[in-house]
Amino acid sequence: PAAHAANWIAIQGTEPADAKPVKLFGFIQGTYEQSFGDPVTGLTSSNLAPHNGHQAIFNTFGGDESTSTFNIRRARLGVRGALEDTKINYFLMAEFGNNAITRVDSVALTDASVTFNYLPGARLRAGRFKMPTMDEALEGNPFAADFINFSAIAAQLVQENRVQAGATPAENAFIGGNSAFRDVGVQVFDWFRQGQMEYTYALAVSNGTPSIGTDDNDDKDVTGRLQASYVFQGPLYGAHRQELSAFVWRGEGKRDYQSDSYRRLRQGVGIHYNRAPWRVRGEYVHAAGMIDAGINPAFQGGTPNVAPTGKAKGWYVQTSYTLTPNWELNLRYDTLNRQYDNAAQERVFKTWTVGGQYLFNPKARLMVNYEFRDLEAPQGNADARRIADAMADRMLAQAVVTF
Amino acid sequence: PAAHAANWIAIQGTEPADAKPVKLFGFIQGTYEQSFGDPVTGLTSSNLAPHNGHQAIFNTFGGDESTSTFNIRRARLGVRGALEDTKINYFLMAEFGNNAITRVDSVALTDASVTFNYLPGARLRAGRFKMPTMDEALEGNPFAADFINFSAIAAQLVQENRVQAGATPAENAFIGGNSAFRDVGVQVFDWFRQGQMEYTYALAVSNGTPSIGTDDNDDKDVTGRLQASYVFQGPLYGAHRQELSAFVWRGEGKRDYQSDSYRRLRQGVGIHYNRAPWRVRGEYVHAAGMIDAGINPAFQGGTPNVAPTGKAKGWYVQTSYTLTPNWELNLRYDTLNRQYDNAAQERVFKTWTVGGQYLFNPKARLMVNYEFRDLEAPQGNADARRIADAMADRMLAQAVVTF
Amino acid sequence: PAAHAANWIAIQGTEPADAKPVKLFGFIQGTYEQSFGDPVTGLTSSNLAPHNGHQAIFNTFGGDESTSTFNIRRARLGVRGALEDTKINYFLMAEFGNNAITRVDSVALTDASVTFNYLPGARLRAGRFKMPTMDEALEGNPFAADFINFSAIAAQLVQENRVQAGATPAENAFIGGNSAFRDVGVQVFDWFRQGQMEYTYALAVSNGTPSIGTDDNDDKDVTGRLQASYVFQGPLYGAHRQELSAFVWRGEGKRDYQSDSYRRLRQGVGIHYNRAPWRVRGEYVHAAGMIDAGINPAFQGGTPNVAPTGKAKGWYVQTSYTLTPNWELNLRYDTLNRQYDNAAQERVFKTWTVGGQYLFNPKARLMVNYEFRDLEAPQGNADARRIADAMADRMLAQAVVTF
Repeated sequence: PAAHAANWIAIQGTEPADAKPVKLFGFIQGTYEQSFGDPVTGLTSSNLAPHNGHQAIFNTFGGDESTSTFNIRRARLGVRGALEDTKINYFLMAEFGNNAITRVDSVALTDASVTFNYLPGARLRAGRFKMPTMDEALEGNPFAADFINFSAIAAQLVQENRVQAGATPAENAFIGGNSAFRDVGVQVFDWFRQGQMEYTYALAVSNGTPSIGTDDNDDKDVTGRLQASYVFQGPLYGAHRQELSAFVWRGEGKRDYQSDSYRRLRQGVGIHYNRAPWRVRGEYVHAAGMIDAGINPAFQGGTPNVAPTGKAKGWYVQTSYTLTPNWELNLRYDTLNRQYDNAAQERVFKTWTVGGQYLFNPKARLMVNYEFRDLEAPQGNADARRIADAMADRMLAQAVVTF
Repeated sequence: PAAHAANWIAIQGTEPADAKPVKLFGFIQGTYEQSFGDPVTGLTSSNLAPHNGHQAIFNTFGGDESTSTFNIRRARLGVRGALEDTKINYFLMAEFGNNAITRVDSVALTDASVTFNYLPGARLRAGRFKMPTMDEALEGNPFAADFINFSAIAAQLVQENRVQAGATPAENAFIGGNSAFRDVGVQVFDWFRQGQMEYTYALAVSNGTPSIGTDDNDDKDVTGRLQASYVFQGPLYGAHRQELSAFVWRGEGKRDYQSDSYRRLRQGVGIHYNRAPWRVRGEYVHAAGMIDAGINPAFQGGTPNVAPTGKAKGWYVQTSYTLTPNWELNLRYDTLNRQYDNAAQERVFKTWTVGGQYLFNPKARLMVNYEFRDLEAPQGNADARRIADAMADRMLAQAVVTF
Repeated sequence: PAAHAANWIAIQGTEPADAKPVKLFGFIQGTYEQSFGDPVTGLTSSNLAPHNGHQAIFNTFGGDESTSTFNIRRARLGVRGALEDTKINYFLMAEFGNNAITRVDSVALTDASVTFNYLPGARLRAGRFKMPTMDEALEGNPFAADFINFSAIAAQLVQENRVQAGATPAENAFIGGNSAFRDVGVQVFDWFRQGQMEYTYALAVSNGTPSIGTDDNDDKDVTGRLQASYVFQGPLYGAHRQELSAFVWRGEGKRDYQSDSYRRLRQGVGIHYNRAPWRVRGEYVHAAGMIDAGINPAFQGGTPNVAPTGKAKGWYVQTSYTLTPNWELNLRYDTLNRQYDNAAQERVFKTWTVGGQYLFNPKARLMVNYEFRDLEAPQGNADARRIADAMADRMLAQAVVTF
């Protein structure tokens, strides 16, 4: 892609010295997706047997078990800029595309923040913005993401999907949209250079409510990240900085669910190495509390479940190779062990993603991904293992234009 | 209006050579509408008799049978542009006004597409955009439409309103917003000049889901259009091209409804002639399957109905005369024979629309329309005929500004 | 703030001579709010006793009785401009933040209007825009408002929150979002200078439907305002006009509620004086019909109530003092006597607000407000008085950036 291995905390929270007061920007991601699953058979429990002959939900894209779809994965419009002296900058963006952010409302604000760059060593950002967590969350997706789908740890552990508990699990429902890695609050952050080394910190206090909205309890989330980079080459706001970086992050808060309040902890470490023509990145994430426990039953019409005291962990490693200025090859392995503390509910996701990208120019590219997907319920019952076995491979193609 | 009789496939799917990378644009249509109906009387069937003394829904604009209303008919904001060499262009637009598109969500994406102009004779457009159907659908409404309301064939046959079947018809409900003639998919298209002749083709494969969203089945829609124009005068992207054009189009797909899947076919032919000071256009549309069967009962509180295997056909002819650079006169006759295959349900719509427009400048105009409306249920029962008889004339005034 | 005491009717409805055809603008208000309430105790009636030990709703910000929250109070994006000769101008704006406007839909159009400046003494504005009511409603909030929250008379009497009556009051629900002082219709207006004096009038006819949408009845609202200003200094479109102004306004319409139609009357008078370093403003509002009667029971989970024939009145006085070009101090007293015509339901709100603002530059400021709040139910029963007694003080901080 056109950007990678940048200091995302700096790039997204501030503006370069030559920033304009008002810059309109945005991007479009038009996607085609196809899965290759077969209907599930052999289910024997009374509540699952009616689903024999149907596709599992993770192989489908819509109500009647479609296994192929065109989609406007993302369509975003934003304005960002800096006031006169770049001491103050702002960032406003909304999602008009079709994804988990716009699950409930067809258009949703993603970002609305103001940064005050007055205090030495302590820039202050207020509003809604990406919390300082994993690299995969922080990178500018349209510019920098090498894969069309997020890794399982990013999608299932770090993104948040709030669920309203019903009288029975079948009445559970999502509350609003996906967090998109964002929250409403304040963040103090800055970075420091020492020769080729660059040290960055960010500490945020936030509502802990994934959708836009006021806080529903008085326990605020606290999220922090530390990052050290050895910069081989390239300026701070450059799109092609070459570097070796390591980082660690941790976010903790409380969530009300049913009639109780539960701790939600997410933490991780990672490293990335970017020196042309290679890029390599790996991240590990550990999660405790408020674990997305999937759609149950795992067929169209199922409802979302939460393991309020569950645990999960996972990691990914990805590498990209620049063949020519226009062609890149991408390979990722990612795995997630969900509810490893609960034998019956434990699920292990393992995905190899092979991809290629054609860069028309710095603002447009075409991506193709093939995902070899595997899901296991190592200690689940026979039905659980049959459903897990059904997880099929998936092919995606995506056109991306940024403006 | 400021534009007419253009090559809309080309104008909307590509950008001229001098296009900027980011162009903000949009328009506002502020409307006043008044209908002149009398309450329905004489209904005798047990389910309709309670509606005696009430206005039929097609004479009203809101909950308490209002017969007059101000409205923000359309308020759209978009960004379009071309990357460096115009080999790639994009188009993003959202609706913020109040119409059938925003029936469920108050703001909705209408367009998000990217066009790749690399292959000779085969430009590729991907995303959400207008399907290649009738001229009335393709023309840029704020710039080019001569009438405030769509013809019946455009509104009822070509636009799509997806309905969720309830346990009883009274529980039917719309799913999302009106398609606005658009769908999510890919289109290959191009045009070719030979002397004064211009030939254009477009072939699209798309989800067949009117709202933004993933496909709900694996049957994709296929829609194509062929067009031949004799251009008297004016460049491709010109606003005032003079031409004689003929075109034919056809779109087919499947829709899930109740527990089955039904074919939805729409096809049409048309011709337009534009040579100052006259413009004349006529179109014929035939439809089979998934016919909008109106609101039933046809009073406030009724629910939408679908004839999944029904048929319909209709046409319109319109003419416009430019009196002075500021004044235009407009006349249209349009008719729709809905469910002509079902005696009891057949409805025939006939409307004469007389209009005048004042063009303040190329970007602002004031339109006034008077619609002489007639609805017949030729083989319907007495109650159906009484309700149909109630269809009243309507007056509309609209201020339009584009930017 | 950066602007105050301007001719808002002129500034918002027209454009200056040097206006561009398309100007992108907007603002972000990121807020932190904290209330200092104690749970209510001592309730004795059978329906209220279960709420003992809970915070009253006016001390909370979310579902689980949060008493502190970060929030994106407002995040708006708009486009405004004038066509070639400024004879026609337009204004389009949408709300992406989290407040009562976006209660139902997460994004909502606030303004979409076109002004025709052709007739001498009678400019015509059509679309959705602020009705000509009180100064606090008309002033551009991000530029000009000296306080973070509206006064009680603005929030409860002049803003409109439409309520759908349920079968029982517990099933009442809001219909769409808050009016944000706006409506859809047409307005004739203009202003006239005579030496230092300036006279302004505005007369609007509108739907009387707070959300975007068509009118639900045929009774249109009529709203008018007269204003006389003695301008010490500063041009019409200036941000820092110094003046002494007095104004009177009145708006009346009908609203359908339950099975009847009720008159909704709002009227007021006001005066403001602006001469550096002082600004003083006072307004009085009287209301009859369709009075917001609060959330009942006044705890999380309560539903909105309306007094369809109720009456209310109130006023505020506020003053601001410019200490330095960067610092301002603000003080306001505001009071509302709600349902003064109904002994049991009468509620008296009294709030002192002390505030300070730091202006980084004309486009960015930081505001801090402390509200000493008092609520009385002078003739209410013991439970009503206990709940009223619970109203606690509140602290707010807000970062504002306009662009």
